[in-house]
Amino acid sequence: MSAVDFPIDNLPFGVVRPPGDDARVVVRIEDHVLDLAAAGIVPELTGRATLNAVLESGRESEIRERAGELLMAAPRHVLPVDSVEVLLPFRVGDFVDFYSSRHHAENVGAILRPDDPPLQPNWLHLPVGYHGRSGTVRVSGTPVQRPSGLVPGPDGRPVFSRTRALDYELEVGFVVGGPTATRIRPDDADRHVFGVVLLNDWSARDIQGYESRPLGPFLAKSFATSISPWVVTLEALRPFLIAGDVHDPEPAPHLRSTRPWGLDLHVEAHVNNTRVSATNFSVMHWTFAQQLAHLTTNGATTGAGDLFGSGTVSGPTPSERGCLIERTWGGAEPITLADGTTRTFLADGDTVTLRGWCGGDGRPRIGFGEVTGTVVAAVTSGED
Amino acid sequence: MSAVDFPIDNLPFGVVRPPGDDARVVVRIEDHVLDLAAAGIVPELTGRATLNAVLESGRESEIRERAGELLMAAPRHVLPVDSVEVLLPFRVGDFVDFYSSRHHAENVGAILRPDDPPLQPNWLHLPVGYHGRSGTVRVSGTPVQRPSGLVPGPDGRPVFSRTRALDYELEVGFVVGGPTATRIRPDDADRHVFGVVLLNDWSARDIQGYESRPLGPFLAKSFATSISPWVVTLEALRPFLIAGDVHDPEPAPHLRSTRPWGLDLHVEAHVNNTRVSATNFSVMHWTFAQQLAHLTTNGATTGAGDLFGSGTVSGPTPSERGCLIERTWGGAEPITLADGTTRTFLADGDTVTLRGWCGGDGRPRIGFGEVTGTVVAAVTSGED
Repeated sequence: MSAVDFPIDNLPFGVVRPPGDDARVVVRIEDHVLDLAAAGIVPELTGRATLNAVLESGRESEIRERAGELLMAAPRHVLPVDSVEVLLPFRVGDFVDFYSSRHHAENVGAILRPDDPPLQPNWLHLPVGYHGRSGTVRVSGTPVQRPSGLVPGPDGRPVFSRTRALDYELEVGFVVGGPTATRIRPDDADRHVFGVVLLNDWSARDIQGYESRPLGPFLAKSFATSISPWVVTLEALRPFLIAGDVHDPEPAPHLRSTRPWGLDLHVEAHVNNTRVSATNFSVMHWTFAQQLAHLTTNGATTGAGDLFGSGTVSGPTPSERGCLIERTWGGAEPITLADGTTRTFLADGDTVTLRGWCGGDGRPRIGFGEVTGTVVAAVTSGED
Repeated sequence: MSAVDFPIDNLPFGVVRPPGDDARVVVRIEDHVLDLAAAGIVPELTGRATLNAVLESGRESEIRERAGELLMAAPRHVLPVDSVEVLLPFRVGDFVDFYSSRHHAENVGAILRPDDPPLQPNWLHLPVGYHGRSGTVRVSGTPVQRPSGLVPGPDGRPVFSRTRALDYELEVGFVVGGPTATRIRPDDADRHVFGVVLLNDWSARDIQGYESRPLGPFLAKSFATSISPWVVTLEALRPFLIAGDVHDPEPAPHLRSTRPWGLDLHVEAHVNNTRVSATNFSVMHWTFAQQLAHLTTNGATTGAGDLFGSGTVSGPTPSERGCLIERTWGGAEPITLADGTTRTFLADGDTVTLRGWCGGDGRPRIGFGEVTGTVVAAVTSGED
């Protein structure tokens, strides 16, 4: 991961473990990490192995300011990031995943339901979403074992098989902080969103297609969700908040906002050494502020450690499509990697890497580093 | 709640708080609770406010045995249950809800999709399920505020409205214990299921109908899920394990079991003073052992504090249907309560109470007490 993503303007939060030692809460600076407890900035973090206390505290601005001052003055209590194990940064509460790129929703609709309108009737009126499995959110670098499940067999009867349609989804994840809240207004989103990560919503398309009616995706997604280890604060991203997408029809009052909640964030996905998807997060139709408002509008509470994903980030052109089912149009149009091999879906041994950054164009670069995962072969016992 | 549910053969676990004091982990005995830390049975529970350490420990058998010996000898460290506040017994990890009564699935299919076959093609081949919101699982007695959301309006455009189709769902919930595990075989279910609760999966049918395509229920369910406060151990329920439903077609190998995983458990739902649903949990098609195997068959992990619901427990006759959308056939056939009023769906002020017990027919009665919740009016700002 490149140190260029983490200048002093960034200072994202994470959790690391030095060899043979206890985990500790840090901020990242270039290619080092600063131990917040040892440096005396947040002494009460001693012994903590997750960011959750920081997420709850609402003190991220003050902590980053003090860390910046210390790092500018006399850097102590810093460790090379290459010398430590980088851990899952927080204990995930509820995980919700949305579906908020219109390009993605229209493409997937056209691929899977070619005889129907590409968007469901609700799509333009609310940010469609569902709950995912929080217990299988993994940190970047964790291998991803190819899942098995029931898929349609040649005679129409289902067979239990390793997935033959393993996909990535290029997403952005939002980490909730502060006190427990409900019925959040979109324009209050920055009081409740602590920070942002990159998120790979690994998906098994054949399992998904078979299981999803009528209650939605389940085992096709729950085997693994990977996130980047550095929680970039919304505070650091403020210079990159821009106007969101135009909505026509106008959304219901509880989904309207007056402040800019789009995010000028470049994101891309690589399979092995080939960049397969690249677009800008500003293509999203529903903003994270609208997503947060929607998910709490029924009185559901959200609080520190909850995570919600944007949905696959897909732009209008083929190279901007954020997953393989779109890039290969359901497998009909294989893509060719730099080594000359082709893919419809992921092969065992493939490594998927998502990267993202704001700025770097004269403005300070606020980067996310990467989230990576390598596909390992399925367990074979009991399968076809 | 009746003391008759909690003889010394039961000894379920829970968490209570005496007035002005700290929460504590207890077992329930008749109309009292025994403080496990104060009694010296599990001293390390001092200061704990959830069962999670007990769920992880795998020590429930030993703890119940020692508690039983102490209670038979010289009961000390017991408190009247009426003198304490009864709390949510454990911190919920992931919450999954299934859909495993064939009667329920066929009825709901016939009501909502009258032109299609009542069962989706996957239903007989796997236990259909989805993830719910763990952060809004509430303990019995917590009021349930009527949710609002987008529902279809008179001109086809959606309107933001309080739900007009608030429903209960009579379910049984299974609490996972022990170490983190994956790819669990059905016949190993008792090594991973700690205990059982009653569960009311409150549902807003109009919100559900509008939002659910293509990713399933979300806000229609996430506002509240209520559970009974006493986690009845699977150990106490062993005498009531019976053969499960016959499967034709035979399920895939990973869903086959040789041991009896059905449960002879009487369950019922009351609206105010009227019993509206009553059946036996043995009507379920997919057993909790098959559900647990299914949810981990893709490599997803499960561990202490995870909760999964059976799905609505509905038997073959009208009075056995476990929710109002079935009881009133989508609102077409209102039911009459004991006070002469009628209901299609729940009214503000209605109290829903689920009860359940095994035995009591010459065998010891192993009861669950009840899970209750009263509907309070919606927040009205910004609505129609």
